[in-house]
Amino acid sequence: MTEKERLKRLSEDVYRANMEIVEKGLVIFTFGNVSGIDRASGIVAIKPSGVDYGELSPANMVLLDLQGNIVEGDFNPSSDTKTHLKLYNAFEEIGGVVHTHSRYASSWAQARKSLPCFGTTHADYFYGEIPCTDVISDGSIAKDYEDETGALIVDTFREKDYRSIKAVLVACHGPFTWGKDVGEAVFISAVLEEVARMGSLTIEINPDSTGIKPALLDKHYLRKHGKDAYYGQGRGRSI
Amino acid sequence: MTEKERLKRLSEDVYRANMEIVEKGLVIFTFGNVSGIDRASGIVAIKPSGVDYGELSPANMVLLDLQGNIVEGDFNPSSDTKTHLKLYNAFEEIGGVVHTHSRYASSWAQARKSLPCFGTTHADYFYGEIPCTDVISDGSIAKDYEDETGALIVDTFREKDYRSIKAVLVACHGPFTWGKDVGEAVFISAVLEEVARMGSLTIEINPDSTGIKPALLDKHYLRKHGKDAYYGQGRGRSI
Amino acid sequence: MTEKERLKRLSEDVYRANMEIVEKGLVIFTFGNVSGIDRASGIVAIKPSGVDYGELSPANMVLLDLQGNIVEGDFNPSSDTKTHLKLYNAFEEIGGVVHTHSRYASSWAQARKSLPCFGTTHADYFYGEIPCTDVISDGSIAKDYEDETGALIVDTFREKDYRSIKAVLVACHGPFTWGKDVGEAVFISAVLEEVARMGSLTIEINPDSTGIKPALLDKHYLRKHGKDAYYGQGRGRSI
Amino acid sequence: MTEKERLKRLSEDVYRANMEIVEKGLVIFTFGNVSGIDRASGIVAIKPSGVDYGELSPANMVLLDLQGNIVEGDFNPSSDTKTHLKLYNAFEEIGGVVHTHSRYASSWAQARKSLPCFGTTHADYFYGEIPCTDVISDGSIAKDYEDETGALIVDTFREKDYRSIKAVLVACHGPFTWGKDVGEAVFISAVLEEVARMGSLTIEINPDSTGIKPALLDKHYLRKHGKDAYYGQGRGRSI
Repeated sequence: MTEKERLKRLSEDVYRANMEIVEKGLVIFTFGNVSGIDRASGIVAIKPSGVDYGELSPANMVLLDLQGNIVEGDFNPSSDTKTHLKLYNAFEEIGGVVHTHSRYASSWAQARKSLPCFGTTHADYFYGEIPCTDVISDGSIAKDYEDETGALIVDTFREKDYRSIKAVLVACHGPFTWGKDVGEAVFISAVLEEVARMGSLTIEINPDSTGIKPALLDKHYLRKHGKDAYYGQGRGRSI
Repeated sequence: MTEKERLKRLSEDVYRANMEIVEKGLVIFTFGNVSGIDRASGIVAIKPSGVDYGELSPANMVLLDLQGNIVEGDFNPSSDTKTHLKLYNAFEEIGGVVHTHSRYASSWAQARKSLPCFGTTHADYFYGEIPCTDVISDGSIAKDYEDETGALIVDTFREKDYRSIKAVLVACHGPFTWGKDVGEAVFISAVLEEVARMGSLTIEINPDSTGIKPALLDKHYLRKHGKDAYYGQGRGRSI
Repeated sequence: MTEKERLKRLSEDVYRANMEIVEKGLVIFTFGNVSGIDRASGIVAIKPSGVDYGELSPANMVLLDLQGNIVEGDFNPSSDTKTHLKLYNAFEEIGGVVHTHSRYASSWAQARKSLPCFGTTHADYFYGEIPCTDVISDGSIAKDYEDETGALIVDTFREKDYRSIKAVLVACHGPFTWGKDVGEAVFISAVLEEVARMGSLTIEINPDSTGIKPALLDKHYLRKHGKDAYYGQGRGRSI
Repeated sequence: MTEKERLKRLSEDVYRANMEIVEKGLVIFTFGNVSGIDRASGIVAIKPSGVDYGELSPANMVLLDLQGNIVEGDFNPSSDTKTHLKLYNAFEEIGGVVHTHSRYASSWAQARKSLPCFGTTHADYFYGEIPCTDVISDGSIAKDYEDETGALIVDTFREKDYRSIKAVLVACHGPFTWGKDVGEAVFISAVLEEVARMGSLTIEINPDSTGIKPALLDKHYLRKHGKDAYYGQGRGRSI
């Protein structure tokens, strides 16, 4: 495929993913955005800002380079674009980023709590708790808010592996997720919402609930991911 | 457009908005009402009282002047009409009012709690907490209940700006929302329900949750609204 | 109409109401039953026991007299039939009875708590809290369980008016509702479920929530019901 | 029917049941699996591992003997297969097993709490609380995780009757249910999810809620099950 063909396909994938997060109930109104990257050219495709989902099409996705310069597109890119770019620059193996205000994940973010790994549903997809960032500082808000939000996420993963925990809760805001491509980023976004929902029920049923023990986390995560995976019809996928 | 044409369109808009609050799940049975105003003539169109949604049409919307005199219509207007009129008289820039008993917003009203601004989803649309009124006094109930309910709302906004917080929780009752037109009033009603739902989850996850800090509230509200807004494809809308 | 015609219509109404409680999400599987009575003849029509909803029809409704003798029908009547009959015998103005295991009302019943009147949504339809019965005694269980369940409900209304509070929560079990006809009994069942849901949210948001004050209860109930009602297009309906 | 015909039908039943748990909302993505057994031949049919529901068909169900040897099928069987087999070997009268990560039942499992029998909805189908297993030991995880999970379930039923309580909550994981055939196992799975949901609401409304008393449990369970059952159109079914 030529670069042009790859970017055309990327715009289509990003468009479809933006529609999918609405269909999956992760987004109401315009409260979300998906981007994807073509690593060979370093070009990112992202949803335009504040356009109703009914009017989106592959053609109005905005294309930018990793410094944020618009390469193609007549619309303003999502107001969260700089956060996406920061993630692409820091997490070099990811191919897609999703941001939503999905109900349960955002409520954990609003509660300023990391989501513990309470069970195997979580452990099957995330190798540990989903961290909640610190509340962004007033200085960062004043400086370059969206860029600094990205920096805050990257800083939160300083001692974590973004390849085995593909989600973060931005305090007082909501989740960002990522994956090897936009499809995986959307999938992770949906799984996160489900485990966030089950997590809130878990502590409602038993306020003393704690995360699962390391041996069980290892077992479930590693039977699906990595070189010894035995779930599914082949080896577990990972980025 | 002539006044006649404007009122015809207003009745259609108000009819459609009344249907929309049912479709959006904000209203069950007949538990809600929408009105709109033609500011040039001072004529308000409102849903008739207790008519099943299946039988509503633009033609059976009731038209009244701002003093409550029926200008056109064969039905009794909504029993909450005087509350709507009070809002149009006091909040001079609004064009539409919505009242529902939507589940989550009404539960905050029943709990007699203002809804704190727990996160950016809220801050994107409301410039601070959604106030809950005092419980209406026995005297006000005895005097002119629906009119006094309106007065109570207006009094609650004595030191708030109805243009940047377009919703109120009437204690023990439910939400009223408004906007520059009926479309915005319905939109705000739906956003309120979502943030009320996330708010109840937030305090369930962390009972010590508090509202977001002023710098973050400012950032999110003002990036969407007012003269320096940079969200969307143009300047942020406001009334 | 002849008695035969009236009973045919009653069977149709009862059949439709049984389907409606499923469509409204008040019943899953076969966990519910509706009956109606023709007061002139004293004949009750009720759902057969444990028949899948897909196989119900007006023709397989069971007809009984007020003593429980089967007048017409090839099936066993609902196992809760004696409870229904007790209510028809004691509450002489009712025309329909609905029993469900609807999620929120049943959870209040399981929690053995009366549902306080937390707001106007409740007050618009019920003139006070929905009482929860005592837990049925071991003696009553051993004697004639379904008949005694009816007696327990009747006893719970010893000092209440079944005409203004058309619902009860049977402790550890679920709700029974009634009305002037099966249509109203179904409607009340749906409203009860909604206010039960809002009630659980209300105490989650504010555990110290209390019922609304008498003046507000009076205002809302009486503006919809009784001789001075002014809601809707005519006088408020009541049984 | 020949063995071949029986196994063909079993594969169809198991396929349909796997689809049904998705349609009923008990499973998202691939988070669940159903198996069934032909007792005459000792052959088990089970869902293949990690195959999207859209690509399932009766033909790709995997057939195994009770020792886990694949008899027919081109795919790897569900990663939970050894757990299913353990149950078929220990619970000799069951014909179907369902495993899901359904939201409410899994949240009880994550909270590591047995689900008390709070009311008659539960008592109609389960003769007592749904037990939650201990957390699986590190030794069992290291040894043969899925087989040991089955052993843990069997051990949990050491002093319980799997014929009257057809469900278990595996701590930190989720529910397994069973029945005389796959149809009943799916039905029980759906009922469990509903009573788990009502159970979480019950303790939210009243944190001091306790299980129902023995006389009421006996009455409801036994009026539907066993030799003196009088619910439905014949004798209550049991395995």
